[in-house]
Amino acid sequence: MDKIEHIGIAVKNLEASNILFEKLLGVSHYKMEEVASEGVKTSFFKSGPNKVELLEATTPDSPIAKFLEKRGEGVHHIAFAVDDIVAEIERLKGEGFVILNETPKKGADNKLVAFLHPKGTNGVLVELCQEIKEE
Amino acid sequence: MDKIEHIGIAVKNLEASNILFEKLLGVSHYKMEEVASEGVKTSFFKSGPNKVELLEATTPDSPIAKFLEKRGEGVHHIAFAVDDIVAEIERLKGEGFVILNETPKKGADNKLVAFLHPKGTNGVLVELCQEIKEE
Repeated sequence: MDKIEHIGIAVKNLEASNILFEKLLGVSHYKMEEVASEGVKTSFFKSGPNKVELLEATTPDSPIAKFLEKRGEGVHHIAFAVDDIVAEIERLKGEGFVILNETPKKGADNKLVAFLHPKGTNGVLVELCQEIKEE
Repeated sequence: MDKIEHIGIAVKNLEASNILFEKLLGVSHYKMEEVASEGVKTSFFKSGPNKVELLEATTPDSPIAKFLEKRGEGVHHIAFAVDDIVAEIERLKGEGFVILNETPKKGADNKLVAFLHPKGTNGVLVELCQEIKEE
């Protein structure tokens, strides 16, 4: 895995958290994006080579809504950048990790993504993400 | 803030988690370190420009022991690298953040560190860390 691509933070109110994280990180968010299939609205901040992604639920039965209900606001996932997500999924399956998306799906920020089951990773929801390159 | 310096993950058994994260990240931990004042034993992995720090409690009343009791294993904190931790603490205090260590303390991995109260940062325990340079 090449680096921590981003950390994903579940928040109740994206507008308020955009202001808060602008103060914290000293930079404005550089984009907002809705992923309707996941019931989530996101915003992204840069921190050097890394990013912070804020996630607000848009539907009451979305994964982020359920996370907020159960755990409250806080770190939702850690995403690692990979060059070849299909090969990395195979490697991790071979090591015994449980992959939640054996076929990578389209995530926010122009990425192919797949998640590992947190029960196999000490409670951390780990995301693999590969930049989608223009052909 | 320059980058995500590391993410800190609370684990029950450092030895077992070292094996697990070696499989996950594809690299071995490069050091282990005990911080007796914090009641914690740590190990560090590199992921490109970032690090993953695993934390095991060494005393039953340490912050990590309490976190594990309350939340179970998982992401404990996110650390951002800063050049001048004293100036950054002042800046963040001015923005209304609550600093848990107004005087930075010596942390693991040759760092001066200070934490922000997670109630002011959407439930995320944020650490500032500055490399201690040899005079």
